[in-house]
Amino acid sequence: MEFKIINKTPLYFALSELGKRIFLPDGIFYWSGRAKKEAELIGTIGTAFGFEKDFIDGGSEEWVPCYLKDFKEYSTLDIRSIVTYAPIGGVAEMRKIWKQWILKKSNYSEESKLKSLENSITLPIVTQGITNGIYMICSFLLNPGEYIISPNKRWGNYDNIINKNIGAKIKSFNFFIDGKFNTQGLESAIQEMAKEQNKIIIILNFPNNPTGYCPTKKELSQILEVLKKSQKIINLPFIILIDDAYEPYVYGENVIDRSIFYDILELEGDIIPIKLDGISKELLAYGGRVGFVTIGIKPQWTDNDEELETLKAEINNKLEGMNRSTISNTNHYYQEVALKMFIDKGMDTIIKKREKVRLLLKKRYDLINSELSKIDSPDVSVDPNSGGFFLFVNINPEKTKATEFADLLLKKYKVGVIPIEKEDDNINGIRIAYCSIDLEKIPEFIKRVSLALNDL
Amino acid sequence: MEFKIINKTPLYFALSELGKRIFLPDGIFYWSGRAKKEAELIGTIGTAFGFEKDFIDGGSEEWVPCYLKDFKEYSTLDIRSIVTYAPIGGVAEMRKIWKQWILKKSNYSEESKLKSLENSITLPIVTQGITNGIYMICSFLLNPGEYIISPNKRWGNYDNIINKNIGAKIKSFNFFIDGKFNTQGLESAIQEMAKEQNKIIIILNFPNNPTGYCPTKKELSQILEVLKKSQKIINLPFIILIDDAYEPYVYGENVIDRSIFYDILELEGDIIPIKLDGISKELLAYGGRVGFVTIGIKPQWTDNDEELETLKAEINNKLEGMNRSTISNTNHYYQEVALKMFIDKGMDTIIKKREKVRLLLKKRYDLINSELSKIDSPDVSVDPNSGGFFLFVNINPEKTKATEFADLLLKKYKVGVIPIEKEDDNINGIRIAYCSIDLEKIPEFIKRVSLALNDL
Repeated sequence: MEFKIINKTPLYFALSELGKRIFLPDGIFYWSGRAKKEAELIGTIGTAFGFEKDFIDGGSEEWVPCYLKDFKEYSTLDIRSIVTYAPIGGVAEMRKIWKQWILKKSNYSEESKLKSLENSITLPIVTQGITNGIYMICSFLLNPGEYIISPNKRWGNYDNIINKNIGAKIKSFNFFIDGKFNTQGLESAIQEMAKEQNKIIIILNFPNNPTGYCPTKKELSQILEVLKKSQKIINLPFIILIDDAYEPYVYGENVIDRSIFYDILELEGDIIPIKLDGISKELLAYGGRVGFVTIGIKPQWTDNDEELETLKAEINNKLEGMNRSTISNTNHYYQEVALKMFIDKGMDTIIKKREKVRLLLKKRYDLINSELSKIDSPDVSVDPNSGGFFLFVNINPEKTKATEFADLLLKKYKVGVIPIEKEDDNINGIRIAYCSIDLEKIPEFIKRVSLALNDL
Repeated sequence: MEFKIINKTPLYFALSELGKRIFLPDGIFYWSGRAKKEAELIGTIGTAFGFEKDFIDGGSEEWVPCYLKDFKEYSTLDIRSIVTYAPIGGVAEMRKIWKQWILKKSNYSEESKLKSLENSITLPIVTQGITNGIYMICSFLLNPGEYIISPNKRWGNYDNIINKNIGAKIKSFNFFIDGKFNTQGLESAIQEMAKEQNKIIIILNFPNNPTGYCPTKKELSQILEVLKKSQKIINLPFIILIDDAYEPYVYGENVIDRSIFYDILELEGDIIPIKLDGISKELLAYGGRVGFVTIGIKPQWTDNDEELETLKAEINNKLEGMNRSTISNTNHYYQEVALKMFIDKGMDTIIKKREKVRLLLKKRYDLINSELSKIDSPDVSVDPNSGGFFLFVNINPEKTKATEFADLLLKKYKVGVIPIEKEDDNINGIRIAYCSIDLEKIPEFIKRVSLALNDL
């Protein structure tokens, strides 16, 4: 593929060396595509095919991919949706529906808003779960040694991906100050980064793992304001990775009711949001490993629709090049099942069914926060939380180390939590996954935590 | 994890910087593991759970992962095998069975041979298909700029993975000389590489894509001899990646009847084979994305069984660290289905069913080679082939460029093939995927190729 538009965008400017050099060579796809259209005799398909009767007892006269019959026993899907490869970028229909899903999740009702959103995002590309989406985009953007900004409390796997794997670095800032999002911390991190590299990369995750934090509407305005102001002054491309793994699970009042992707996309200047979402939590199918990466495109990058379509095709080619050279493609079964659910049941039915789970979790969220609020100790504080699967209880490190506290909780009170202890990052506390605690057990759970705290 | 043994092995010496630094932090797994054993109240599990009746109409009193009912409609598996995460390294039982499968594929019958093989290979780790296994191991070993040796005719995706993604380089040698494996070419490539870096990395793929080549028994001895001799002289670690994607599809006589992994493992010295295989072709489930990586361990690296087990655990931790930081884990469904097939049906039944497909392909292999042998032209030669899904027809580049020939074939004769044209690598020819051509159409297919050749 010849790249004509992308090379001139701030997005390209922000790519890593890998991001700049990667592409999907179209040789095989060009020739097999032509063969499908022009040939009577096709010798391009690298999958074994045969007449079903020739390899399955009682098989038909149909020319199908050779398969082992047992695969049929475990699923009601057509065997072709199970054994054959999914396309490199994902099942075409699934990608289109996920784009519609992203439009729906915007909560826009105005036709013109929806149209403009549709134009300004790429066709979502399927990755091997959201982790793989994060990995793919981080290596697409970050050279070894370069920085990405993240709040100090974050999913531990970011450190595995960014530090240990890619060899890049995380510039942390304290997530909260006085129980609110630390806007000033974000702003300072951006300013520091601008001295060290010529692009600003940030990753944000709301509802957050491990804290459960979602911004209030006011906090969102402040975050947007910081981004807008800083980008204007610094005048470098800002790329904001938006880890929307827990997107639908918001319980608190007065907090944002949709991903921050949409608001960031609307900002002027080269503030580029990249949306990372998937079926893991949205369709409660963790083991499916179907994630999506969707890139926001700014109007100032192209002069007309043709250029815009070309740019989208170029981005898609590069991302497919990333897939091809790491995973080839994502498993077929879960894409087909998710697709069938969307087509057969419809988005509203899916949301309605999932709403039961959300309400179940909301009850636990309400109760666990109310129980925790009874703990009155200057050495303990709960981080602001209003969604997701977890919450985080800070403990004064001078009183006890989080790991020692978790050990005490286990040994004396038979309560299991995940301690997080990072002195350099000002973290000492425990993550409680209330997503998997029965409502009725929550008072006892928190009572024991409270007793253990009294032991200190 | 504390690494005690691996750091002293030649394997470690050969790792890339990424390979050296990667590991799986065991914090969360340590605490959630302890919680399972020690706690009454568990708040460590990051998956939403509930009583089934609370989120499914007519659900049971059982405490299960929250799921959307529709997932049940498409499969007969237990919902827990579909929606939950598979472990980072793969479903434990599946990994064990695949190790047994590798033992079986050795064709050893002697108990002592099997025992020794079992001891000297790691527990296979599950990757997202064989591509992901190749990607994982190449980035585990190769720093940007470093070389890996490969025959010039190879799967095109090696170039995407190694050059475009990792930024490493491929040292090519001409695959064949006088219709045989070019042992001398391999030897020279090794000698050149030894001048440039302090480890020798090679990737081999038999049956080969695109040529269908498998070594004869004699050629295998020669390859082994070159490896043994060169390693002794050069005295650096040799790592041989063995891409066994097409492992069971061997049709020719007098060629090897098992992967070269086993023979290489038996060589003395630090000649380390890494086996890359998977269900894509072995179980005809391309879309399943279940591959395996298995590393050969040399007896001289450890002094006793305890050290050996520690070494295996250390290697496993590093590979799980690779998985965790790129894909998290591989999809659950196909692992469970493959596992069920192995348990419910047994290995011999699977082989028996697959044998029908092998024989189908063998017939095509025999016929297409016999038809091709009728072409008598000094400008055309078929590469030695005896297995896999493809074969490769070389065309004198002075007569025509492969792409022009493919274009002629398409336009005038309505025949579709994949041309491969790499001047620097002495390649000009067409790949024919007979795996997907009906036996009855093969004579006509080759006749048209022959007519097109006459047009030149």
